[in-house]
Amino acid sequence: MNTHGDSCKTRESGLTPSCGQVKFAFSAWAAMRLGYLPAVLFDKVTIVGVGLLGGSLGRALRERKLAERVIGCVRRRESIAECRRARAVDVATLDFADGVADADLVVLCTPIARMAPLFKELLPHLKRGAIVTDVGSVKGSVVRELESLAAKAAVHFIGSHPMAGSEKMGVLASRSDLYEGAVCVVTPTKKSSRRAVLAVEKLWKSVGARVLRLTPEAHDQLVAKSSHLPHLLAAQLVNHVLGGKSSSEQIALCATGFRDTTRIASGSPDMWRDIAIANRANLAKGLDQFIGELRSLQKSVRAGDEKALTRFFEQAKQRRDAWCGQNGFASSE
Amino acid sequence: MNTHGDSCKTRESGLTPSCGQVKFAFSAWAAMRLGYLPAVLFDKVTIVGVGLLGGSLGRALRERKLAERVIGCVRRRESIAECRRARAVDVATLDFADGVADADLVVLCTPIARMAPLFKELLPHLKRGAIVTDVGSVKGSVVRELESLAAKAAVHFIGSHPMAGSEKMGVLASRSDLYEGAVCVVTPTKKSSRRAVLAVEKLWKSVGARVLRLTPEAHDQLVAKSSHLPHLLAAQLVNHVLGGKSSSEQIALCATGFRDTTRIASGSPDMWRDIAIANRANLAKGLDQFIGELRSLQKSVRAGDEKALTRFFEQAKQRRDAWCGQNGFASSE
Repeated sequence: MNTHGDSCKTRESGLTPSCGQVKFAFSAWAAMRLGYLPAVLFDKVTIVGVGLLGGSLGRALRERKLAERVIGCVRRRESIAECRRARAVDVATLDFADGVADADLVVLCTPIARMAPLFKELLPHLKRGAIVTDVGSVKGSVVRELESLAAKAAVHFIGSHPMAGSEKMGVLASRSDLYEGAVCVVTPTKKSSRRAVLAVEKLWKSVGARVLRLTPEAHDQLVAKSSHLPHLLAAQLVNHVLGGKSSSEQIALCATGFRDTTRIASGSPDMWRDIAIANRANLAKGLDQFIGELRSLQKSVRAGDEKALTRFFEQAKQRRDAWCGQNGFASSE
Repeated sequence: MNTHGDSCKTRESGLTPSCGQVKFAFSAWAAMRLGYLPAVLFDKVTIVGVGLLGGSLGRALRERKLAERVIGCVRRRESIAECRRARAVDVATLDFADGVADADLVVLCTPIARMAPLFKELLPHLKRGAIVTDVGSVKGSVVRELESLAAKAAVHFIGSHPMAGSEKMGVLASRSDLYEGAVCVVTPTKKSSRRAVLAVEKLWKSVGARVLRLTPEAHDQLVAKSSHLPHLLAAQLVNHVLGGKSSSEQIALCATGFRDTTRIASGSPDMWRDIAIANRANLAKGLDQFIGELRSLQKSVRAGDEKALTRFFEQAKQRRDAWCGQNGFASSE
């Protein structure tokens, strides 16, 4: 099932194999001595589901020479050619059992609703002591289920959530720098092996991410606010403004403010449905609080309360501008 | 008070005055014969308040040679030098009476709460039959008040709302192409002079805008939905997520989705307070409806209703992607 081949490396370097290998071995050694290159971290990394996130991870690992082999497991035959075009992995395969065999590290990059059934399918083929992580946006339910399955099979599951992405999907949209500067949450539990946690944290740091360690529960509460609620609001805003019998005038009067406020509503409906369901308890509570705040805002608007509205808009601007400053964005971004 | 001077034109052309004038006269005539350049539309245009919108209009008029003279009225002495740096007007002045005297067209680019008092101040200095328009984001209350003041002074007031802007403010952020492709709503009433309406529509068309004619009331209802409600939601979202005792983790977990959804919350607090107050009836009603929709969404989330949530996210994506397509945006924008 090796349809991609190690030849990628040779093609990329543009050197003949023998000369290339000698040259790489020397320059990598020299660079490591000088502290320029990290050592190879893993012998075999297998990425299960090679889309935007998995493909970007594969490209980053390959470009930085962080693994001896990067294998991609894909469901559709067409994906093999796409992986090759994107140079996302060394080998792409439809054979999941073969793909994960002997892997030191397996990264699950599939939709969260698919994680548990997929993990059960892979378990018999994982080597003892293998480390498994994922890229899912909700951690509590996923970590609880996969950690307990992993323990029974003598492998380790540590949850990850790299906060990187794009409305574009698929391996052809992948980029080797997707994780550079992004926050990646790693969510160990009391049961986690220290070696496995450190390996997963090293993975994300080595592709440029800033690692933040949180419990799965704390993660889910925080992202419900900062990421999942904004998605629900953006989608609700689109349905409110463009739904029903929207006139052509209504459509014409949506400008760049509307465009930016609703950008994330163009994300994958299936992915966002799964996230909303997996994090429903936090989201329902967050919506309750947000609705209460909107009611109070509505009172100020109805009353034309100059003082309250000045404070409301000033606080929002100050808080956002400060946040942008801390993150190196211009406030006009 | 002419602190800027017609010399701008000569400096810009890089020609000596006499040779430049001859050359322009010939090429403009030739271009007009060939249909490339519109004729000069106005003798004297005065822009009152030369910030982003006023400055961009001035630059567009000057670049396209649509007016013999473009005068800018400003409140602060420092603004005169800024207008010069931005090449926004031919002459910038602190003397409003002199600035608007003899103007064929006066464009009010001041905050909406300042429109009526300013207009009263200018009225005695306007020439009979002068046409006055504005760039305010709310039309009903402004048009009612200014139209009746104008009638008493034998001048014409026609409301405009060019849907262009940026979170950046001030004349130094102005651009001569700001209005290109933007929708500009013009809001005549039954009392409006046809000549004045056509002149104002021609102004916006000549700087590249797509003119949409609506009643002031229809305008306010439509922008409450497409522009003002998104602003309230973006600001409320910032206050919800970053307000109170936000932990450093909460701040770190706000990524590009949060950034884009809240971009417009970095706009001018004073401007948005004025808009919320001026359009409060429509906004309070819109918030009521939106809150009802959020309650229904919350029920689906709490119940983990897969079918309802799939439909919700699918409709949002379809509607937004279709809108983006109609407006020449990629859905990832």
